[in-house]
Amino acid sequence: MNDITSILHQFKKGLLSAEEAAEKIRAGTVPAPSHTDIDYSRLERTGCPEVIYGAGKTPDQIEEIARSLLAAGQNVLATRLSGEALDYLNRAFPAADMHPEARLMRIAPNPVPRTAGFVGIVSAGTSDQYVAEEAALTAEFLGSRVVRYRDCGVAGLHRLVSHLDSIRQATALVAVAGMEGALPSVLAGLVKAPVIAVPTSVGYGANFRGVTTLLAMMNSCANGVSVVNIDNGFGAGFNAHLINSLASRPS
Amino acid sequence: MNDITSILHQFKKGLLSAEEAAEKIRAGTVPAPSHTDIDYSRLERTGCPEVIYGAGKTPDQIEEIARSLLAAGQNVLATRLSGEALDYLNRAFPAADMHPEARLMRIAPNPVPRTAGFVGIVSAGTSDQYVAEEAALTAEFLGSRVVRYRDCGVAGLHRLVSHLDSIRQATALVAVAGMEGALPSVLAGLVKAPVIAVPTSVGYGANFRGVTTLLAMMNSCANGVSVVNIDNGFGAGFNAHLINSLASRPS
Amino acid sequence: MNDITSILHQFKKGLLSAEEAAEKIRAGTVPAPSHTDIDYSRLERTGCPEVIYGAGKTPDQIEEIARSLLAAGQNVLATRLSGEALDYLNRAFPAADMHPEARLMRIAPNPVPRTAGFVGIVSAGTSDQYVAEEAALTAEFLGSRVVRYRDCGVAGLHRLVSHLDSIRQATALVAVAGMEGALPSVLAGLVKAPVIAVPTSVGYGANFRGVTTLLAMMNSCANGVSVVNIDNGFGAGFNAHLINSLASRPS
Amino acid sequence: MNDITSILHQFKKGLLSAEEAAEKIRAGTVPAPSHTDIDYSRLERTGCPEVIYGAGKTPDQIEEIARSLLAAGQNVLATRLSGEALDYLNRAFPAADMHPEARLMRIAPNPVPRTAGFVGIVSAGTSDQYVAEEAALTAEFLGSRVVRYRDCGVAGLHRLVSHLDSIRQATALVAVAGMEGALPSVLAGLVKAPVIAVPTSVGYGANFRGVTTLLAMMNSCANGVSVVNIDNGFGAGFNAHLINSLASRPS
Amino acid sequence: MNDITSILHQFKKGLLSAEEAAEKIRAGTVPAPSHTDIDYSRLERTGCPEVIYGAGKTPDQIEEIARSLLAAGQNVLATRLSGEALDYLNRAFPAADMHPEARLMRIAPNPVPRTAGFVGIVSAGTSDQYVAEEAALTAEFLGSRVVRYRDCGVAGLHRLVSHLDSIRQATALVAVAGMEGALPSVLAGLVKAPVIAVPTSVGYGANFRGVTTLLAMMNSCANGVSVVNIDNGFGAGFNAHLINSLASRPS
Amino acid sequence: MNDITSILHQFKKGLLSAEEAAEKIRAGTVPAPSHTDIDYSRLERTGCPEVIYGAGKTPDQIEEIARSLLAAGQNVLATRLSGEALDYLNRAFPAADMHPEARLMRIAPNPVPRTAGFVGIVSAGTSDQYVAEEAALTAEFLGSRVVRYRDCGVAGLHRLVSHLDSIRQATALVAVAGMEGALPSVLAGLVKAPVIAVPTSVGYGANFRGVTTLLAMMNSCANGVSVVNIDNGFGAGFNAHLINSLASRPS
Amino acid sequence: MNDITSILHQFKKGLLSAEEAAEKIRAGTVPAPSHTDIDYSRLERTGCPEVIYGAGKTPDQIEEIARSLLAAGQNVLATRLSGEALDYLNRAFPAADMHPEARLMRIAPNPVPRTAGFVGIVSAGTSDQYVAEEAALTAEFLGSRVVRYRDCGVAGLHRLVSHLDSIRQATALVAVAGMEGALPSVLAGLVKAPVIAVPTSVGYGANFRGVTTLLAMMNSCANGVSVVNIDNGFGAGFNAHLINSLASRPS
Amino acid sequence: MNDITSILHQFKKGLLSAEEAAEKIRAGTVPAPSHTDIDYSRLERTGCPEVIYGAGKTPDQIEEIARSLLAAGQNVLATRLSGEALDYLNRAFPAADMHPEARLMRIAPNPVPRTAGFVGIVSAGTSDQYVAEEAALTAEFLGSRVVRYRDCGVAGLHRLVSHLDSIRQATALVAVAGMEGALPSVLAGLVKAPVIAVPTSVGYGANFRGVTTLLAMMNSCANGVSVVNIDNGFGAGFNAHLINSLASRPS
Repeated sequence: MNDITSILHQFKKGLLSAEEAAEKIRAGTVPAPSHTDIDYSRLERTGCPEVIYGAGKTPDQIEEIARSLLAAGQNVLATRLSGEALDYLNRAFPAADMHPEARLMRIAPNPVPRTAGFVGIVSAGTSDQYVAEEAALTAEFLGSRVVRYRDCGVAGLHRLVSHLDSIRQATALVAVAGMEGALPSVLAGLVKAPVIAVPTSVGYGANFRGVTTLLAMMNSCANGVSVVNIDNGFGAGFNAHLINSLASRPS
Repeated sequence: MNDITSILHQFKKGLLSAEEAAEKIRAGTVPAPSHTDIDYSRLERTGCPEVIYGAGKTPDQIEEIARSLLAAGQNVLATRLSGEALDYLNRAFPAADMHPEARLMRIAPNPVPRTAGFVGIVSAGTSDQYVAEEAALTAEFLGSRVVRYRDCGVAGLHRLVSHLDSIRQATALVAVAGMEGALPSVLAGLVKAPVIAVPTSVGYGANFRGVTTLLAMMNSCANGVSVVNIDNGFGAGFNAHLINSLASRPS
Repeated sequence: MNDITSILHQFKKGLLSAEEAAEKIRAGTVPAPSHTDIDYSRLERTGCPEVIYGAGKTPDQIEEIARSLLAAGQNVLATRLSGEALDYLNRAFPAADMHPEARLMRIAPNPVPRTAGFVGIVSAGTSDQYVAEEAALTAEFLGSRVVRYRDCGVAGLHRLVSHLDSIRQATALVAVAGMEGALPSVLAGLVKAPVIAVPTSVGYGANFRGVTTLLAMMNSCANGVSVVNIDNGFGAGFNAHLINSLASRPS
Repeated sequence: MNDITSILHQFKKGLLSAEEAAEKIRAGTVPAPSHTDIDYSRLERTGCPEVIYGAGKTPDQIEEIARSLLAAGQNVLATRLSGEALDYLNRAFPAADMHPEARLMRIAPNPVPRTAGFVGIVSAGTSDQYVAEEAALTAEFLGSRVVRYRDCGVAGLHRLVSHLDSIRQATALVAVAGMEGALPSVLAGLVKAPVIAVPTSVGYGANFRGVTTLLAMMNSCANGVSVVNIDNGFGAGFNAHLINSLASRPS
Repeated sequence: MNDITSILHQFKKGLLSAEEAAEKIRAGTVPAPSHTDIDYSRLERTGCPEVIYGAGKTPDQIEEIARSLLAAGQNVLATRLSGEALDYLNRAFPAADMHPEARLMRIAPNPVPRTAGFVGIVSAGTSDQYVAEEAALTAEFLGSRVVRYRDCGVAGLHRLVSHLDSIRQATALVAVAGMEGALPSVLAGLVKAPVIAVPTSVGYGANFRGVTTLLAMMNSCANGVSVVNIDNGFGAGFNAHLINSLASRPS
Repeated sequence: MNDITSILHQFKKGLLSAEEAAEKIRAGTVPAPSHTDIDYSRLERTGCPEVIYGAGKTPDQIEEIARSLLAAGQNVLATRLSGEALDYLNRAFPAADMHPEARLMRIAPNPVPRTAGFVGIVSAGTSDQYVAEEAALTAEFLGSRVVRYRDCGVAGLHRLVSHLDSIRQATALVAVAGMEGALPSVLAGLVKAPVIAVPTSVGYGANFRGVTTLLAMMNSCANGVSVVNIDNGFGAGFNAHLINSLASRPS
Repeated sequence: MNDITSILHQFKKGLLSAEEAAEKIRAGTVPAPSHTDIDYSRLERTGCPEVIYGAGKTPDQIEEIARSLLAAGQNVLATRLSGEALDYLNRAFPAADMHPEARLMRIAPNPVPRTAGFVGIVSAGTSDQYVAEEAALTAEFLGSRVVRYRDCGVAGLHRLVSHLDSIRQATALVAVAGMEGALPSVLAGLVKAPVIAVPTSVGYGANFRGVTTLLAMMNSCANGVSVVNIDNGFGAGFNAHLINSLASRPS
Repeated sequence: MNDITSILHQFKKGLLSAEEAAEKIRAGTVPAPSHTDIDYSRLERTGCPEVIYGAGKTPDQIEEIARSLLAAGQNVLATRLSGEALDYLNRAFPAADMHPEARLMRIAPNPVPRTAGFVGIVSAGTSDQYVAEEAALTAEFLGSRVVRYRDCGVAGLHRLVSHLDSIRQATALVAVAGMEGALPSVLAGLVKAPVIAVPTSVGYGANFRGVTTLLAMMNSCANGVSVVNIDNGFGAGFNAHLINSLASRPS
């Protein structure tokens, strides 16, 4: 939609009819939408390629979308893959970078420049690992350097404190925790970088599959915390990369 | 009810008729219940005198119950007093110990032996003070020594850590916090004493008047935490005193 | 805690006794904590001065804390001020910058360098204005340039679209909306900057004072959205400034 | 019940005994109710034949009801069919119109007149398709012409906008979306037709199987939106057809 | 946005510069947006003038918007007016049509054509009247004829049944009820017209200010029911009028 | 509606026209409904006169309905009266039986026969008294004898046990309790009569104005318990009287 | 506990030692509790034999308890049996009365006198049948005559109305419904008998497995309704029988 | 962290470099953290060895952690083991003490001194047994003597009462119950010891997998009750042991 003026001039020169010009303006993208309606213009519009959200899609649907994106010259990230989809795609794309523990696949034929700064991924317990990995692999896919800090639950503060000098070098932080979700509050009280909090569905009883954790994080008493949805490692990695990449552009 | 055998023997000796014996056994208390049905036997049965819960009672109702308890030779603790009730009772009982900031009144003509150990009351923010004071004053009323640790919110860990050597001497701990309620988890990871967690209704938005805090505390990842109702400083002080008093009895 | 090594060396040189060294390490701050326990080291530790959260504090408590911060050479931001507190503080600090519509006060004797980039504050309806202003004034207080975009509700998309060329220049965006909370999703689909979403408690019926809006924003189908608590304009402005300030530092 | 007067006259003429007349009036239907109590009068009373809600019924129960309806000269629509039921019914009714993707079956031996106007079914993502199809096939079954608009999620507005000229021709619209449920609000701000919103259970974390979406739609800031239950494509298609059919009757 | 082609032709003829054309297309409205950003194009775009939602606006803000709309040649409807606003506006607009019982004001200098069909407003109890009136007055304001049916609660079915012959003549129905919210289900089982259900916040205990009623209506076992937000009489009247007006247009 | 046959015969004899007969059958009541639509036939249809629910009605509305009922020869019970309404009605009906503690008024010029059996009203704490009294006064109004048992909370079981011989004589029991709502379970394990449980909104924190109590009562592990809405003393008294009155009729 | 006096006299006569007397009084039951702690005194104490709640018990545990009860001369009712348990018990007790559709088993070697009156079980849809049958079979097991009324959903009122003359003869009514749960309200407005409402977990979307139905029934606008837990057919049948059996005892 | 002074002195003596001293202080533990980051210092810091929470870990992960703890000279407790894990670990550790009914494993090569007092575990129904056993086995593992009281549900009070003399000897009590969760309230009204309440997920319908029980326990009207998470037998046993062990230490 932001190249309306260029379309107007093409129209004035007669390169486009009034109908064609109106259609292009309405659609907001120069190439006519294909029958599968993949949002190819997203990369240019929002700075991120279309990511394949695997949940609720069949393996061959995922393959088809991945091939379309590759054909369009884009890198591919597919998340929330079932075990069946991981197996299928592993065979379909031998060169793919498969991560069963984070349930995602990356295919990146086009090199992405690395950021100068790095994203720190701090997680609390073993059960939070697959979400933390989804965040880490997403940020890497988009171009960020990433450092991981594991086993930093608040019931054993000395472990978090022992990593503090390193953590304070990060440009942006992701804090992944379940149960009472105290990690982002403790962390944000110790650092200057923004903290993206990810509640996980780890816990039982009155945890409600992560809702308690999400609400607790929302009520953080520390400044500099914002929150994404339960188990949304992708969203946290995406946000942290966005922030990290800003530190590399000329002000 | 645990002196049934003694009632049986009084009956056999003819000191009680069958009807009187049956009545005493049914009622479970030797003195016939008064028309106001105050539970005078509670002190003996549960180790705590009847406490006056002030919410929903008129000032003169509170005065009447207090006078009955004093007449029965008991100390008086009244909680959740409105401003109006505090004024009224201050005039009615000139010798009372009034605590407007904790909304309670103590009248203790009978000396209570002090415990050897002490209860530590750790609180997070200024707004948690009235609940923390209710806990502290309750534990003192029942006979515990109390030490208060204020401004120990998890977003500024150094303040909690600076008190740690003292906190570790407490027999039992009360942790009072609102918002994300992380204090009990952090505290219990650093000490050996049991921690009674009190969620407060401090917060806004998705805090739901303390429900988020309560749920987060329920999901604490640390061992040794149990929880009482929102803003229930009295209950926390009561539990902490119970535990503290156990350390003073011969094993 | 991050100058432990320097304390160690002071200790070795005999400038500090073992007890003094241990105490300094425990407290994590060189100046001994005052009796009011204001967190003066927060500015250095987290990049933000202590902010006075006005809810639940009396006007004279707020005045006292503000005077302490000013005496320590810090600028002052006080939020969530009642009408009574606004009047009182206006008289107490004639030079203060009062904002009744956003319920906050700023006193900034120390100049703060302006960022090169700017924070965009996009809001939906008239009733969202006080939250949007809290975000805007917070970001400005911390040093960000701010541009405001009002009346951009999704039921009249043309208004949002008419501002799009400007909005796309922002380094970081805050999206403030109540009711169904669709603004962050629509906005994030059109821009590259990270979007901090603030649900407001505007609405009625099944809105639950903003909880519906918060949950809807959590479930945004667009990338690059993270969320702060209901009506938390301060938190959103703080986060947006953090991000914006990163774009100005050398990578 | 609305032909009481005609029953009264049959009674007066002696064609019915008092008992028969009373019975007919009580039952509200001229044919005596069968042992299976199918509501054959519903078509006349409410304009819609009895629809078979397949969930919780065995395949042979569904077959039996379908055969009864066909024997009574009615068309058959069965929804929420399990995979097992779809297979069974496919064999039982070779002439049936089976739609596994929408989990429904239609058998329509009696021609239904087509409406002049059409119902537009606008959906957001791939995962919303089975609900959108349930709505579309229901509206067609009842006699409406239907046009489908897919992939119109609000994070890529240009796709919705590119269909707008066509969408604005619809007599009634169904908007199917999961996650934050913003589609009905955006759509209703752009059109004049009434919009029936259908929340879907697509999402994860704090989506609560569609409850967040439902609540968000309830709080739409746009005029002309009403809502049906989560995943209730049938209800939305039914309502949209009701409205569409009104445009064809003489005013 | 739907006159893009006409803007293109103005541009080609030189009546507009490229910048002006692009600006007009972006804004989607020919007149430049005023500083108060009233959505004057809404009437043309969605068929309804901008309605003033009075909650959260000061009386003089409401007066100002009303005068702007009148100056633009539009009729004025203001809802959710406080008692104070009703008094103020009554003095400010002596010719206005004030409805304190429904908390709204209508000023309609421009005649609106009446529909041939009518909207039926069926309500359960006395306490539901103000919501029912908001619905009725809204539908009338927009041009519908309206018939009201009161005291039709399901605990006294004979009252609903006694109105049934008339109710069945309505083109569209609004059902207003609190408590268990059974009225729309019972009504929809007896009629052919679409039923817009409005839950009211009437009830106590486990009613949750209308949430129970809303959820019950969502789960209606009857076909042809859709639901608007709690107490949203305006929304129900708007939807019912939309449907009613369709019956008057040539198919 | 159950005298359809008699109406049919009146019609056949010419005492009623077809229109009149149809109208009578539709309305289900012989007297034409008055303009205020009071449900005078309720007494005959359901065994209970229309009761005036005072909440949300003005004092003069209540007076008007009461006078209509008295004029129709019925006794009057008005519940949920505000302090203002109690004062007003006390002046309007000097002979009325006013109960401010239960917020209700009774006017009973027509004697009601007393039942042989009695309803027992068992309540837990002082704060539950107004609900217990509403239940007791309602059951008495309808004709039941009532015995009240107060201060029977489960934390002091001996008080409940001391009344057990008397409680076991009741035909039906009402158990009124707030907080954890354990009284109905304990009571139903000790008696044979049905127990109507009434949760009260007494409590704080995670009590949610009685919702926790209601849910706990719903989950009673004892047989013979059914539950009415929070604070619904009227409903409990009504149900208990219904049951009690059954024991007096010939089987 | 109510034969304390007789124990006292046995003690005085020397038939019991003081210890034995005290023990008997404490236990409240003359036979010493067996190691499996079956509550054999429940029948005498509460009028109902111990019922076996099958959920969470293994088939052989159920068999063992059933054999113990039979050995003690009691009839056996076992509810919530899994398919596996039904098969196992069918083989173990060839004379048992098995009801797979209601998931229960009855073994009744001891004749139970039939009540004069009957319990009416009114249910809405096919999916409510298993709960309705649990209620019906329970009431029969306890001695009540039962009449079943099926397919009486409120969306087809004529079916309920056609049974009304019979329904009005019942001593007590059970109303079983899912979805919006309107049946008890409609029913109670038409009859004099008390109505026990049973919400069922039938529905989808915002039904929350019956919670919406339960809440709606709690808010019934009709008098004479009380509610039991979701799907609790046993509880409803038990309560209805209790009430029905009262009508048979001499007043 | 509490041996900072000793580290300082090691540093001054040259036994540690400044870097080593700082690192030790930061980490808070003398041995360098292993790559698996097991918290070996927890025993010393909090009085409890690290317990293996089995949920979400594979059998071989559990085995590996157990072997590490044994190698470090600690006893091993593993909870929440799946059937598969129980089988695997039974084979891997032939000397282990397996408890399938409580889903846990204990390996205790190091003798633990027994406490003088004992923990009483009071449970309500058969289905609460696995949680009660988790509590009992945990308290025993940590060194407490334990007495179990089963089948003490409040619907048959005589069973609880018959154990009362013994229960009153316990130093600390655990009360395990599902459904309405009344047991802790009744128990705490009869004893002096603190009561740790454990809600279980036993129940159906409006029990919400134990949430109703948890909330009811939170609202206990009795003093001396604190609550742990749903089904958290481990936490209750841990807390009860903490309290019990205090009674054995010199005051």
